[in-house]
Amino acid sequence: MSSENKAYTREHLFDFTTKVLMHMGFSADNAAECATVFLAAELRGIPTHGIIRLGDYCKLWEKGRINPMPVLKTVHESPCTAVIDGDSTIGMIPAHKAMKTAIQKAKTTGTGWVSVRNSCNFGIAGYYAMMALKEDMIGIALTNASSLVAPTFSSESMLGTNPIAVAIPALTQPPYVADFATTPINRGKFTLAAKKGEKIGFGFAQDAEGNPSDDPTVLEKGGSMLPLGGSREHGSHKGFCLGSLVDIFSGVLSGANFGPFVPPMVPYLPMPEKQTGTGLGHFFGAMRIDAFMPADEFKQRMDEWILTFRNARPAKGCDKVLIPGDPEREAEARHLREGIQLSSPVEKEMQDLSRKFGIPF
Amino acid sequence: MSSENKAYTREHLFDFTTKVLMHMGFSADNAAECATVFLAAELRGIPTHGIIRLGDYCKLWEKGRINPMPVLKTVHESPCTAVIDGDSTIGMIPAHKAMKTAIQKAKTTGTGWVSVRNSCNFGIAGYYAMMALKEDMIGIALTNASSLVAPTFSSESMLGTNPIAVAIPALTQPPYVADFATTPINRGKFTLAAKKGEKIGFGFAQDAEGNPSDDPTVLEKGGSMLPLGGSREHGSHKGFCLGSLVDIFSGVLSGANFGPFVPPMVPYLPMPEKQTGTGLGHFFGAMRIDAFMPADEFKQRMDEWILTFRNARPAKGCDKVLIPGDPEREAEARHLREGIQLSSPVEKEMQDLSRKFGIPF
Repeated sequence: MSSENKAYTREHLFDFTTKVLMHMGFSADNAAECATVFLAAELRGIPTHGIIRLGDYCKLWEKGRINPMPVLKTVHESPCTAVIDGDSTIGMIPAHKAMKTAIQKAKTTGTGWVSVRNSCNFGIAGYYAMMALKEDMIGIALTNASSLVAPTFSSESMLGTNPIAVAIPALTQPPYVADFATTPINRGKFTLAAKKGEKIGFGFAQDAEGNPSDDPTVLEKGGSMLPLGGSREHGSHKGFCLGSLVDIFSGVLSGANFGPFVPPMVPYLPMPEKQTGTGLGHFFGAMRIDAFMPADEFKQRMDEWILTFRNARPAKGCDKVLIPGDPEREAEARHLREGIQLSSPVEKEMQDLSRKFGIPF
Repeated sequence: MSSENKAYTREHLFDFTTKVLMHMGFSADNAAECATVFLAAELRGIPTHGIIRLGDYCKLWEKGRINPMPVLKTVHESPCTAVIDGDSTIGMIPAHKAMKTAIQKAKTTGTGWVSVRNSCNFGIAGYYAMMALKEDMIGIALTNASSLVAPTFSSESMLGTNPIAVAIPALTQPPYVADFATTPINRGKFTLAAKKGEKIGFGFAQDAEGNPSDDPTVLEKGGSMLPLGGSREHGSHKGFCLGSLVDIFSGVLSGANFGPFVPPMVPYLPMPEKQTGTGLGHFFGAMRIDAFMPADEFKQRMDEWILTFRNARPAKGCDKVLIPGDPEREAEARHLREGIQLSSPVEKEMQDLSRKFGIPF
């Protein structure tokens, strides 16, 4: 990104995002909840899940594919589980409710597990997993997504990039926060390579027949992304296991759509003809540390785990081992200090939304 | 394997394994429990975790590193969780008890989660995950193991091949059973390539300095296996997340050793000087399906999921998509029909044990 791009404060972008959502009919509370997650993505250096998506949500809303005034319902419940129906709204709203429910249930029984159906993209999974940290709990968040990824041995896109996030508290060290798609790279890297006229390298995608491809535009030509592992001999069947587990927990177990039937989150793609449930699905977990051992003892052990791994001998030419969560935390500190730079197309989209809705940017 | 190798029935190998373990001092019940898991590995086509390990267990027992008369203790408990101390015995014994406890707790509260410390290698993780299937539950099993795998950016072995197993029931289709190490390949492939004088290819290992290596003997020369993904650009940091999550759930949360401090399961390697807990650790989960939706409705949805993926368009030159659990189930049917062929070295080791202990093989 050009160093000349203007940096915006978190507050500025949060305020604008909230107002755009309220213009669409979301309540102030719901709008703020969504904006918090959009901005968490920007701060943590994951702009692919940040306000770049605001325009898409507006277009989905214009097409009536997003409900700005949802009535969330708990459709199934047990002492430590629940299923929530998202009433076809933006994913952040049922996701917040579901993670809060998981935490509440964990307080009573030790662990809480909540699946969500009839939802839409929820932003970054790590945000919800991290909600458990201040309660001395381990937090887990999964979501399925519209299909881009082919199973091993297939030439057909059947799974989303289906992320897994797990947040684990430590005592004096910052928490361990893993948050990763179950593919080698995210879709943004294809777009970036195409824009630069570069190849993407092998091990990331295949063409419509299932042949290895290094063409960054192959996804628009009927190709697919590959699961983590990249090829059968390098373990892509394990990446397929991971992506499919996320799909089953998020989609099958909740009553949402699964696999190739998950609705796309972009307005220019039609809904799949067949539906196997409602909307897309998420899955959340919260586990009290002290259901296993005193929380401080565990957190001290996590400190030792983190320091042991961070101080592992670096490979030749490498600086140090990064603990999951380190890069995002460093990005957050930098963005809070220096502001958030938007790419020129995102800045232009915000200006377009500003003009369209009469909300100053 | 040569087609001339003799095929043994499951009963024959089960009987011999049980008698060897009883000779070591295990009770008949405990010996049978262990033998069941050894034979499950043989039947399911995972002989690296089968009776090939019986000799190593005998040597560990001779060195006093395995307790044949364990008194298992539940050291911590909540309505849906427990921590079990394995009293330094073979992993199959506390693993059985832990999975049974998880299932029992799930019956009461919806889900059950049990970690185990002071244990040893437990065989194949998938066996325990599958114990949940007949209860209409999802089963989960994880274990840490002695270190062979370097974190991304490090040249030091810090993690085991730390497997993840998840078993999910279906209605008319066979169950979904994922059971995979969090590395691209297992260690056995290194041994096999070395024996054949072949290279292993890149993306699987690195040398002692952290340079990519295709030398199948590199692990004996201070090298390390790589996490799933293989290289940073192909997502090895995600494989590191997976391996480390398994280590934290199995080791840190139970009070076992974690990371590089996990004791080796082979008798010729010394115990690590530093200990961060007792033995190695496992983690088990059981989730009632009907804590989320009626079990038959879910299992019907799983049938549809399985058929959708199995019928995905095959890639050029491929036969069909395999659902996790398919290859192992086919191997099991074949082995039950045709018997289990042992490799010549394993057969010889059984004959040695037979002579040593005076147990007919």
